Amino acid sequence: MRILGIDPGLATMGWGVIESDGYRERLVQYGALITYPRDTFPTRLQSLYEGVRGLLSTFRPEEIAFEELFFSKNITTGIQVGGARGVALAACRGYTDELYEYTPMQIKQAVVGYGGAEKHQVQMMVRMLLNIPEIPRPDDAADAVACAICHAHAGAGRSQFKIK
Amino acid sequence: MRILGIDPGLATMGWGVIESDGYRERLVQYGALITYPRDTFPTRLQSLYEGVRGLLSTFRPEEIAFEELFFSKNITTGIQVGGARGVALAACRGYTDELYEYTPMQIKQAVVGYGGAEKHQVQMMVRMLLNIPEIPRPDDAADAVACAICHAHAGAGRSQFKIK
Repeated sequence: MRILGIDPGLATMGWGVIESDGYRERLVQYGALITYPRDTFPTRLQSLYEGVRGLLSTFRPEEIAFEELFFSKNITTGIQVGGARGVALAACRGYTDELYEYTPMQIKQAVVGYGGAEKHQVQMMVRMLLNIPEIPRPDDAADAVACAICHAHAGAGRSQFKIK
Repeated sequence: MRILGIDPGLATMGWGVIESDGYRERLVQYGALITYPRDTFPTRLQSLYEGVRGLLSTFRPEEIAFEELFFSKNITTGIQVGGARGVALAACRGYTDELYEYTPMQIKQAVVGYGGAEKHQVQMMVRMLLNIPEIPRPDDAADAVACAICHAHAGAGRSQFKIK
């Protein structure tokens, strides 16, 4: 099964595509959609919408796993990043209903075996599990790949993580 | 000039289209895009995205005026409504760069002449200015029409309200 992982963000939206046979994962490709502060917020959102649509048509994933937004308390940031996540969800929903979401802790638990793992531990495990020479860059791409692995490992229990 | 006003929301996204010659406004049509809690969040977002695209192709507005989101402090609500606003902005940006935004207070000031006006005062003025027999329903549609009128009245000073 082909899985697209997405780590939503306004300036950087990480993505990673893996193939999983239920036991092992193989990396297909990863990257990040970048938007620039010199552009208006609507322009950045539209660029992300089109970017996600491009990923879907290029990689034709069967299921999509989002990393859940984590917020301190800045409501303005929340509305902005909520907008970035929103356009990604809308673009994906136009393609499939197989949308899932995992918290950072669930992803760490699935990839490292410990929900409180450090970022570099997650990245090292991603590298090892996929048997690739380097850690994916930027960090958001590594996070997206980890999210896709997390979804692959959820197996039959994945339905509880479907986005409601 | 034809103006589309939008009052963004997840469950109800009000909209209103007016024609303005710079002195007077004429109502073209109003309504609300509705989404249902029984549907998933991504489904609701995609429905709003397609709904806004439908409005744009139907009414071909030259400029679009959004009512700014107003928030107390609930971050979860902020992310959700931020998502709804985000897909509306992305859909509009795919159509034009003429996107503007006004606070509720600016809209009240422009329509009633007093930024602290009550909702029913705004609605009565909308009815009078447009010379229509009834107040637009639902409230979100009336708000969207008021937002469009506010933009029409901004005249040459509108550039400062362009969404950055």
